[in-house]
Formats: sequence, structure tokens, C-alpha cells
Amino acid sequence: MRSPIITLTTDFGLKEPYVAEMKAVILSISPNVNIIDVTHGIDKFNTRMGAFLLASAAPYFPKGTIHVAVVDPGVGTERHPLIIQTKQNLFVGPDNGVLTLAAENQGIEHIYEIRERKTMLREISNTFHGRDVFAPAAAHLANGKPPTEFGPEIHEVSTLKTVKPIKRKGVLVGEVIHIDDFGNVITNLGQKELEQMSTRDRIKIRLAGTKLDLKLCKAYDEVKTQEPLATIGSHKFVEIAINQGNAANTLKIKVGDEATLYRS
Amino acid sequence: MRSPIITLTTDFGLKEPYVAEMKAVILSISPNVNIIDVTHGIDKFNTRMGAFLLASAAPYFPKGTIHVAVVDPGVGTERHPLIIQTKQNLFVGPDNGVLTLAAENQGIEHIYEIRERKTMLREISNTFHGRDVFAPAAAHLANGKPPTEFGPEIHEVSTLKTVKPIKRKGVLVGEVIHIDDFGNVITNLGQKELEQMSTRDRIKIRLAGTKLDLKLCKAYDEVKTQEPLATIGSHKFVEIAINQGNAANTLKIKVGDEATLYRS
Amino acid sequence: MRSPIITLTTDFGLKEPYVAEMKAVILSISPNVNIIDVTHGIDKFNTRMGAFLLASAAPYFPKGTIHVAVVDPGVGTERHPLIIQTKQNLFVGPDNGVLTLAAENQGIEHIYEIRERKTMLREISNTFHGRDVFAPAAAHLANGKPPTEFGPEIHEVSTLKTVKPIKRKGVLVGEVIHIDDFGNVITNLGQKELEQMSTRDRIKIRLAGTKLDLKLCKAYDEVKTQEPLATIGSHKFVEIAINQGNAANTLKIKVGDEATLYRS
Repeated sequence: MRSPIITLTTDFGLKEPYVAEMKAVILSISPNVNIIDVTHGIDKFNTRMGAFLLASAAPYFPKGTIHVAVVDPGVGTERHPLIIQTKQNLFVGPDNGVLTLAAENQGIEHIYEIRERKTMLREISNTFHGRDVFAPAAAHLANGKPPTEFGPEIHEVSTLKTVKPIKRKGVLVGEVIHIDDFGNVITNLGQKELEQMSTRDRIKIRLAGTKLDLKLCKAYDEVKTQEPLATIGSHKFVEIAINQGNAANTLKIKVGDEATLYRS
Repeated sequence: MRSPIITLTTDFGLKEPYVAEMKAVILSISPNVNIIDVTHGIDKFNTRMGAFLLASAAPYFPKGTIHVAVVDPGVGTERHPLIIQTKQNLFVGPDNGVLTLAAENQGIEHIYEIRERKTMLREISNTFHGRDVFAPAAAHLANGKPPTEFGPEIHEVSTLKTVKPIKRKGVLVGEVIHIDDFGNVITNLGQKELEQMSTRDRIKIRLAGTKLDLKLCKAYDEVKTQEPLATIGSHKFVEIAINQGNAANTLKIKVGDEATLYRS
Repeated sequence: MRSPIITLTTDFGLKEPYVAEMKAVILSISPNVNIIDVTHGIDKFNTRMGAFLLASAAPYFPKGTIHVAVVDPGVGTERHPLIIQTKQNLFVGPDNGVLTLAAENQGIEHIYEIRERKTMLREISNTFHGRDVFAPAAAHLANGKPPTEFGPEIHEVSTLKTVKPIKRKGVLVGEVIHIDDFGNVITNLGQKELEQMSTRDRIKIRLAGTKLDLKLCKAYDEVKTQEPLATIGSHKFVEIAINQGNAANTLKIKVGDEATLYRS
């Protein structure tokens, strides 16, 4: 029999025992669950980064997976704790947008506020609803408790404004949405934008004031070591990299920088 | 059937394969065990930090969990390898205090020295008893081998001196016992000390020479972004934080600093 | 019943969801597999470090374990994806040497190129064969698919040149092959080299220009705190350490430095 999977995405880091406390609570309620860390390295309080990375990973998990995300600067305030149901998965976390992108990509079916006191730990701290509210909710879901039993259905969910590329005088203005641990620069320009502006094998892009004319590669190794290149990254966005180097450091690029695609 | 849980708390970091080697040994002896990392980010050789974080996480794990802690600057010397039995859990590690706080919180029932050669790996290195002694002991315990079969019962265990808050001329002098990855400053002042000195909604505290008059909040968000506050943290100690900021960096506070509570 | 074990060794770090995506793919194909991280902290693109750490950890895993290593600067190029079969284990990863040391230590029996399209994800990205090729291959192997069904047997595998200690005018010239997270300096000088050059309890070694005459200890604690010592480390190589300190930082030693053993 397949164990249910619960994933965890947080900004807790791995130095503290906070993640372990969530796992302890989950396993106390649902002993046979398989807990997988998506990442605990979200920049502190950065709900946008949490939303992007959860949305990147979620499509690869099997149907029925329960995704918990806790990037929660508003813990203890009036922001609601949520369960979002899609055809594919359940998402558990605060109503601050961290769940929304991943859930919307799958199509949101129902949203429930977690309000039922007996789905939570007996004692609820001020500052750690990851352990006291979200972990037990996920574990009860893994045990088969239906989402309808956690609280009332609601019909709105917070969304983080995402920037879409815009057309301006024959160019497409997008932006850098993520820089990964390799220093690869991930933009919000997808295959569709690329097709509008580029020939098949090169792209012209301006990043942080620098205009680049890059080979559109299928492998990093198609250019020489330490040379820049463009590629369609593993999440299907245009990505600027340096073969065996760190593009963000070398080109001094940060998240939020404009990425303007020129016709080539 | 519920798999037995073994937790690991070490100062090994996650760059090296040391943690994986411990897990490999455990799974070779007890294939169905569920291994949960508490943390491998203890500051090197800091038994006091190891003891505090293990004691923080342990209460959330189910009865029967086996906690292994390896912060072991004296590896290979005469310090004994131990199994400590409480009503709730088993603790495995060196006799240097790293296990004691968590075990004492549950009430120590028996202490055994691990001496039986056949409970260890065939070859024992000089420097890595985590893999060669503690991991196999935990795995055999998970398999149901009784603690009495590992070696003689002993009646003393090392304890790390912990500082209790002391009363002095109408103030309570405590100290900073931990700074977490968010920069939250955790003191050894609990609910009881707070009740002696404070009204219900504000506290006066001097930290590293700075006198602060802070709102005692239920949520970080009760003060403005980047403003300091006090709260009862998730482990029930008075905690100084900055809403969406890093209190320890901003206020220049480190572990061991005095935290003096004034009447308010 | 024992779940099959799949281990992961990568240079992906833990900030990104890349490791989680590999685990998601594995669990989608083989739900009962037990996934153990060896390390994701390999220095980016450093196949040599990946090979060393995988070879360090592999011997401790049970027979039948499937080891996946993805340090893959040549992803998307002509380098082959491989399955290497030994008597003990299966190894999955790129043909760039990262698997070879661990596999050769066990004795290579067969090498297969992964070429069968239906053993891979439906869509294959340019840049992430860890998720799209190696993870599904490992999962299918865990499900019992024989290695012969992934592609043709081949008879050569890339090897990273390893330096062996050489004799020169009565000294043995080795080198530093790894510095661990504690700052312990691990050389390629083993027990055999030591026996040629040393008395039983002291060694004379020159490291990065500094000549050291060190006690050969069974425990770090045999010398005073902050004093240097030599020991046979947990992987059976001569290791220079500082009791409760960081030898590499203090002595300014880096990987690749000469380590010359003198007669003592």
C-alpha cells in the first residue's frame, strides 16, 4: 500500500528543530505518512519565493500528495489557516498567497478555513502555527479526514501579484523571478514569448542594463567554460546561465531586475 | 504497523556524508525504522546547544521514539556511551550532558552504559562513534533488544550546569540561552518569572546593556514591521523578536548575555 | 518486507526544490522506496568531491542499495547516462567519473548505458537529467526492472585520475584529498604508508610548507584543546585535526596541497 505523502516548504532553515517538531506532530497523528522536504531555505518571510518554489516542485508529486507551506510573517494574526483542494492535491498553509500559485496551476476546486479546534494541537503557541495548526491538519488529511470537517468553505484566497511580460515598442519586458543556488537567472519569459521575439538559436536580452546576445542552448556545455548562454530551464522559462559558472554573481543580477527580450 | 522512529541530533553539518553513514548503519540493522533529523546544525562541539535543541524537540515525538544525539568532542576517550531510559523515550549518545536535559524533563528511569561489543559495528574507528557505536545501538533498540542487554546499569550521568534566573534587588536576572535562525532571542525567563515582574501586556527588560520597554504580543504582527516586541515563544520562554526582522543582529545580542527583567 | 533504498548525492544544495523534484519522480514510480540523502553539498560541478564522498558512504549501505549521483556539468551533452552494477549495489548517474570510485571499490560487474526512452520522464529538460533521466531509472530499478532493459551494455567508464602517494628520497609524497566540515584535513595516506614511515605513536608530516611532528592519537582529546594531532580517520586515511578546533583554517590548508610523510 502506498503511504500518503506530505511535503514541507518553509523559511525555517535547518539549524533549528522547528522542522523536526512539525514532523514529530505529523507522525504522532499519522505514523505511516512519508514526509518529503521541498525546501526549508526560503528567504525569511519571502512568501513570493515560497510560492514560486512550491509551484515548481508540486507538479512532480503523485496525485493525493498533501503540500504544507509555512512562510508566515502574519502568524497569530487574523490571516486564516487554509486547506485548498485541487483535482490533484491538497494544500495546507496560511492565507497569504504562498499556496495560491501552485494550487491555481492545478485548478482550485474548494477552499476551507481551518477552524475546528480539535484538528489542532491541544496547546497552540503564539508563533508556531506550522507545528500547532498546519502539521496536525495535514496529518489528519493524510488519515482520510475530509477537508469539509476542518471548517467552513470560503470563496476567496490571497494572491501574490505576479508580473506578466508586457509588450513595449517591439520588445518584451519581463523580469527575473528567481536566482537558483547555481546562480542561474530564471526569468518570467516562457516559450511563447521566446517564439515571438527570437530566431531558433540565439536570443537578445537586456538584463540589469547589460545587453546580451546569447546562444540558445540545449546544454550548458555548448558554449565554452565560463561563457554565458541562454536555455529553456527545467521549469520552462528562459534562463541565463554561465557554463560551470555563476551567472547572477558575474553579471550582477538580482531578483526583480528587468529582463527585456529583443527581436533577433 | 507503526515503524519505530529514530531521531538524529548532531554537529556534523549536511555537507559531509557522516549523517548518511549513520543512517546506512541503522537501516542495515533495522530496515523499517523511520529516521527523522532533528538538526545537524549544532555549533561544532557545543553540547549545551545540542542539549537545548534536543530538549525542545523531544516532547513532540511519540512514545517509544529513540533519540540519538552526537555532539561528542570527547569521542574515543573514557566518556561512556549511554542509553537513558525514560517513561516516554530512549536516548542514545555520549555521557557529556547532551542527552541529560531532554531525558530529565521526562524523568530518568534507568541509565545503561553501552559496553557489549556485539551491539557495535565490527570495526570501531577512533573518531566516529556516531556511526560505529550509537547508530547500531539505536537500531538494535528499535529491533526490540532491551536496554539491559547493552551493558551494566549505572547511576550517574553528566549534567550541563544550567543557569536559573536569580532575584536581585527587585529584578530578575536571567540570560539568553539561544538565538534561532530568525534572530529571535530566547531567554531562560519563563511564564512564572514573567508573572512576578510584569503587568499583562508590557515587559521591561535589559539585554546586552540596552533597556527595552516592549509590548508582550501574541503575534509578531501586533507591532509595526521592523519594531521590537516580546512574546512567549513556542517553547514557553520569553523571546525578544523584531517583526519581520532579526532581533539578535539589530540589538547585537548573543547567547550568554544577561537578560534582566524589571517590574513593569 | 525491506523497502529498497535509493541514495542521492548531488551538488544541488538544499535551498532549491531540485532534490524534492527528484524524490517526487522516484516516489511516483516506486512508492515504497526509502530515499536517503548522502549529501547535496558537493561543491558545484566538483565531480572529484562527489566521487570521494559517495565512495566514503557507499560501503555502509546494505546490499541492493541503489546509489544515484548527479554532479553533472556536462548535462545535455554526449556524456552517457549510466547504470553500473557491482556485486553489492547499483549506481546511476552521468559517465563523468562521479560513480566510478565507489563502484570500483566494490568491483564493477556490468555497465549499461541508459538509452531506453520509456525508462525516462515523458518530457526531458535540457538541464535537469537528475529529475528526468536518473531519478526515474533508479525508481524502475527499485521496482525490479533489470539493468539490461535500460540500454546496451558498454565496456568503458570515465575515471577521475586519482593521485597515489609516491616515494621520493626516503619520504612519501601524498596530498590532501578532502577537508571536512570540522576542518579536519584528510590525506590520501593510508595505514600502509604510515607503517612504512612512522613509529607507532608519532608522525612527521609537511603540509602546505609547515612541518609538523604530531602525536598519532586514538582520540582527539589525547592532546590539549586547540592543539594539532594526527589520527586514522573514519575512512582509514591519515587525518590532521585540532582538538576542538579547525585544522584547515588554523594551518591554512586546502584540498590538493602536498602532504609529505617523513620517517619518524
